Amino acid sequence: MINVGILGATGMVGQRFIQLLENHPDFEITALAASFKSAGKRYEDATNWYLDNEMPESVKDIKLVETNPSAMNNDVDIVFSSIPTELAFKIEKEFAKDYVVASNASAHRMKKNIPLVIPEVNPEYLDMIENQQKENNWDGFIVTNPNCSTIALTLSLKPIVDNFNVNSIRVSTMQAVSGAGYNGVPSMAIVDNLVPYIGNEEEKMETETLHLLGNYDGKNVHPADFKLSASCHRVPVIDGHTEAVFVELDDDLNIEDIEDKMANFKGLPQKLNLFSAPKNPIIIKKEEDRPQPRMDRNAENGMSISVGRLRKDQAIDNSFKYVLVGHNTIRGAAGASVLNAELINDKIL
Amino acid sequence: MINVGILGATGMVGQRFIQLLENHPDFEITALAASFKSAGKRYEDATNWYLDNEMPESVKDIKLVETNPSAMNNDVDIVFSSIPTELAFKIEKEFAKDYVVASNASAHRMKKNIPLVIPEVNPEYLDMIENQQKENNWDGFIVTNPNCSTIALTLSLKPIVDNFNVNSIRVSTMQAVSGAGYNGVPSMAIVDNLVPYIGNEEEKMETETLHLLGNYDGKNVHPADFKLSASCHRVPVIDGHTEAVFVELDDDLNIEDIEDKMANFKGLPQKLNLFSAPKNPIIIKKEEDRPQPRMDRNAENGMSISVGRLRKDQAIDNSFKYVLVGHNTIRGAAGASVLNAELINDKIL
Amino acid sequence: MINVGILGATGMVGQRFIQLLENHPDFEITALAASFKSAGKRYEDATNWYLDNEMPESVKDIKLVETNPSAMNNDVDIVFSSIPTELAFKIEKEFAKDYVVASNASAHRMKKNIPLVIPEVNPEYLDMIENQQKENNWDGFIVTNPNCSTIALTLSLKPIVDNFNVNSIRVSTMQAVSGAGYNGVPSMAIVDNLVPYIGNEEEKMETETLHLLGNYDGKNVHPADFKLSASCHRVPVIDGHTEAVFVELDDDLNIEDIEDKMANFKGLPQKLNLFSAPKNPIIIKKEEDRPQPRMDRNAENGMSISVGRLRKDQAIDNSFKYVLVGHNTIRGAAGASVLNAELINDKIL
Amino acid sequence: MINVGILGATGMVGQRFIQLLENHPDFEITALAASFKSAGKRYEDATNWYLDNEMPESVKDIKLVETNPSAMNNDVDIVFSSIPTELAFKIEKEFAKDYVVASNASAHRMKKNIPLVIPEVNPEYLDMIENQQKENNWDGFIVTNPNCSTIALTLSLKPIVDNFNVNSIRVSTMQAVSGAGYNGVPSMAIVDNLVPYIGNEEEKMETETLHLLGNYDGKNVHPADFKLSASCHRVPVIDGHTEAVFVELDDDLNIEDIEDKMANFKGLPQKLNLFSAPKNPIIIKKEEDRPQPRMDRNAENGMSISVGRLRKDQAIDNSFKYVLVGHNTIRGAAGASVLNAELINDKIL
Repeated sequence: MINVGILGATGMVGQRFIQLLENHPDFEITALAASFKSAGKRYEDATNWYLDNEMPESVKDIKLVETNPSAMNNDVDIVFSSIPTELAFKIEKEFAKDYVVASNASAHRMKKNIPLVIPEVNPEYLDMIENQQKENNWDGFIVTNPNCSTIALTLSLKPIVDNFNVNSIRVSTMQAVSGAGYNGVPSMAIVDNLVPYIGNEEEKMETETLHLLGNYDGKNVHPADFKLSASCHRVPVIDGHTEAVFVELDDDLNIEDIEDKMANFKGLPQKLNLFSAPKNPIIIKKEEDRPQPRMDRNAENGMSISVGRLRKDQAIDNSFKYVLVGHNTIRGAAGASVLNAELINDKIL
Repeated sequence: MINVGILGATGMVGQRFIQLLENHPDFEITALAASFKSAGKRYEDATNWYLDNEMPESVKDIKLVETNPSAMNNDVDIVFSSIPTELAFKIEKEFAKDYVVASNASAHRMKKNIPLVIPEVNPEYLDMIENQQKENNWDGFIVTNPNCSTIALTLSLKPIVDNFNVNSIRVSTMQAVSGAGYNGVPSMAIVDNLVPYIGNEEEKMETETLHLLGNYDGKNVHPADFKLSASCHRVPVIDGHTEAVFVELDDDLNIEDIEDKMANFKGLPQKLNLFSAPKNPIIIKKEEDRPQPRMDRNAENGMSISVGRLRKDQAIDNSFKYVLVGHNTIRGAAGASVLNAELINDKIL
Repeated sequence: MINVGILGATGMVGQRFIQLLENHPDFEITALAASFKSAGKRYEDATNWYLDNEMPESVKDIKLVETNPSAMNNDVDIVFSSIPTELAFKIEKEFAKDYVVASNASAHRMKKNIPLVIPEVNPEYLDMIENQQKENNWDGFIVTNPNCSTIALTLSLKPIVDNFNVNSIRVSTMQAVSGAGYNGVPSMAIVDNLVPYIGNEEEKMETETLHLLGNYDGKNVHPADFKLSASCHRVPVIDGHTEAVFVELDDDLNIEDIEDKMANFKGLPQKLNLFSAPKNPIIIKKEEDRPQPRMDRNAENGMSISVGRLRKDQAIDNSFKYVLVGHNTIRGAAGASVLNAELINDKIL
Repeated sequence: MINVGILGATGMVGQRFIQLLENHPDFEITALAASFKSAGKRYEDATNWYLDNEMPESVKDIKLVETNPSAMNNDVDIVFSSIPTELAFKIEKEFAKDYVVASNASAHRMKKNIPLVIPEVNPEYLDMIENQQKENNWDGFIVTNPNCSTIALTLSLKPIVDNFNVNSIRVSTMQAVSGAGYNGVPSMAIVDNLVPYIGNEEEKMETETLHLLGNYDGKNVHPADFKLSASCHRVPVIDGHTEAVFVELDDDLNIEDIEDKMANFKGLPQKLNLFSAPKNPIIIKKEEDRPQPRMDRNAENGMSISVGRLRKDQAIDNSFKYVLVGHNTIRGAAGASVLNAELINDKIL
């Protein structure tokens, strides 16, 4: 068993980490860190538990520590980080001196030699860890996962990009409120309403996706060279991001061929049979009105994305469209970091 | 004063007709038609009033008649139709023998010689009425307005199409539940959820928009020749459709120029100062998170559309993006028919 | 293993039956009945699956039969019924000639010699089965469970009624939309709104609760003699009924004493260790803002009710107040019938 | 014209003040105050306008001032206060030295000699102003209106209390999110959920209602002597509080008699024909499923409450039940203060 710690343990993504790591065969939670105001309290006493399943008994009595490396138990090997990005810039580096940091924060995602990874998409980016350690003189290292809406999109695109020549992609999102954190979206903003703006979200989707689908030459990442434009919107849904995707290829296409490539897509986590890896990263829905966030967000414990309404675009040559749903705080956040850690555990540790 | 009748008077769009025609300077409601089950009852007794303002006193005592021409008062000149499309095919033709039919139904929208009109966009299509009357040997005629999501999109595109060369458009909608009728969307389908499918909606948007933005040569309509692809979704909003629009032009663009053309767009209804015409068909919102349906659907009594987040597409050449909100049962339905009737009253009757 | 059938198998409560019976240690689904339109189809083909977990593989290929006794497999012993009440009057009697009918329909709830049972509350009412069989000359029999809002209320009241003299109870409900069936509540009725009326609900709560908390003398049920008044309201929540309860006792009270009786309440299902029995039928929540439907409806697989805000009434003598949440389609419907069947299986079959 | 100022002008209730005072025949807004961070800015620039009608042109250019008396224009006579209660304790007293303060804050509601008033209910409490001014040596004075849920309840009870002997009342509320301020209720707390707790709300309802329905003997208020118990809950509704009310009288009752008293209730504002006074403070709804917040909150510009489901309690002697809806930020907040000011303007200034 590998001992793990969680930074930002009382927050929404922190709670998902706890949920996903309960009964994990390889990882055991031995340290929970939070803000200095909560440090010293029992986890149960300090935490307003947001999830609709019960807080695991195993964490209730853990005493929260402050978010710095010296507060960790010596025996922790991996820390999962869901701290706010503005804090993550500094703190994650401090942890990386000694620990493996599997981070959901955006602070280091696009930094040189810090792998931004989806295990089914670009596991080879882990190769940059060696350079990272050398450059910084660290014993540990940082690995990051993408933004929630990016992960779902990129997973759906991987079999497309691998098999066809993509010219351009437009994506319009309908994102769940949990993506903004518990206090992120006031109910006054979203009941009988939607908000057609999410700060920095379009920029993250447009850059991270191309970065993930690019290639790493041992020194640098060369982003994928198709064009990607996003429009991001918040809707009154608790969990589960929905995305309408318009894809234009360079050439004519056969929609059954595309469906086949998506339906049969498997990545390294499936080959390695990693604990959190879904059997099918992409589930094809055939009903005319699916996927839907409330119905499909929990597919394969929230680790699969669901793709539906896959159809040839009748109006635009060489084009097709689809709709996807992915669980934003599982596959899109905590589950992404956990799967990264499982891959690291299998390949590196 | 012109006496008008309403077909489908007890339904959601029928109620909007009543709301909009209360205190109308030119039209007076003298006949309300509904299904044979309601015929003979007082309007107030037969109607489950859905709107959040009160039922006008003036209609409460009107006795509902059956939906056929002989049941109309002789002195009715215009009938507004919001009957279900499958009934509209036959019934609207019967009415057209003697009456002007301003229809919100889709039955006759794309039929030869039946004008599909947005007064700000293609008022010249009314010229086909003469042919319609000749061909059918009718004293009256049918004029139709487009689908709710089409109207908002097309209004926003008119100043673009008039001033720039459009190559292609992708639009992703987030549509209000009222668009499906009172019983159209069960709450089980939409609370903490969205439905990424609306039957026939994408087809209607793709064909009607090009038809409206095309030109009529005195015999036929030549649809606009850019490419238009739609993805339509239902969200938990009562009224107000939101649409994310991706536009690709043939040439480079200046975003201020586009904003200027939209902000200053006026059409014939504004020149004629028609009663229901908004001062500005398109209102430009400058806040980063607008337009929003609950906040912007009622702009200019629900007859303006609001456009925001107008921005150059950083990822795709010659492209820009924006978000619009339009009131689907006012500008997108009853108000559209009323404005059509006002234009007809001004130009033809 | 006992073979069971489900009547109304494609509906919302029918789907919950399937969910709850998957992996059941004593019951195996061998027959699924639906309307004649669906009869003959595979379950998967005929059913619009509403639940957010996947349809169990084991039922997908079962061929639906019509809802009459001759269509059942001979080897079925128990049928679970969630057919509409107006059909249940006749059909359930036909089934009772040969089968045990565990019904969630209201048709026979208050009928002489037909036990209306919550296993934790009044298991002794099963004694009336003998009379039921004799009178009707049936080999099978009917047992019913109460209305969804009644079950949660009555469970919470059982330890009160057993230990204190109740004078009167007022209850105000905030009920989930799933209680009305999939198409029961249009989204137009409930987005940014609530509906302060549910047909017959108040009457059911007021009569069923007193019936359940009464006593059976071997011939008749003598209802409990306190006064009970209900006001029922529908709110925009998918699953989970919330009820605000005002209790007036005959005598002064100690609130810790009441909490203690509720927290430690166990019934026969707990003693018998029935498969679906929750460890604690009543869970006491101590947070000031709980229970909440989304957070607490799934407590103990949806079979426990959660009680919170238990407080002495400062304004009214001998009174206290509390709020409860119970899962309306699990503990309040399918789970209630299943627990009834488990009790019958243990005590009678 | 009387010049008025608004304290807390950029907040939700502040915006309602502006909406209600636009086009007011007697009051003209000449000063808007906000926090020191906003002071100096144009109102339009400092304000995130939350209402679904447009910000009035007349206030856009007003320069915000700090919230202290010296910052007011000399010529302001009345200040409307919607500042947070913790600030109101001190600040409103400072203003009262020179100005009439019509406050929606709770700080001074239950203080000796400070009238807590609903003009239809207890206008005679204004008599205590004289004592207030003497005691404090103030030229101005403070008058307050009750909590939002209290106002609606008390209005509905006034004709009951005036005509019948009330023994006890239980009220269970379903309150809109706007009552908590724009950021008060996170969407994570309320989508597919409700929160059965509102801090201090039950205490306010229980004390303020009895205070308002009591009598003032020239020195002290003697609260009404019936018993009142409240249970308060937050539901996913934007505006409009719904309350289920259980009333027990001392004697038998005739429900038509009660309806008649409520339907015909008029107070002093109706007699004086005050500008904001609704024609009928209580509107009786006869439909079985009304009142509903989205449909009825705007009755008479949001200044009437709607009462429905008025029915004799079949279970409890001498009792009846009803449901009411009132607009919480109009009748329950800004409109209440404005009506108070209109009454003061008519009777005192």
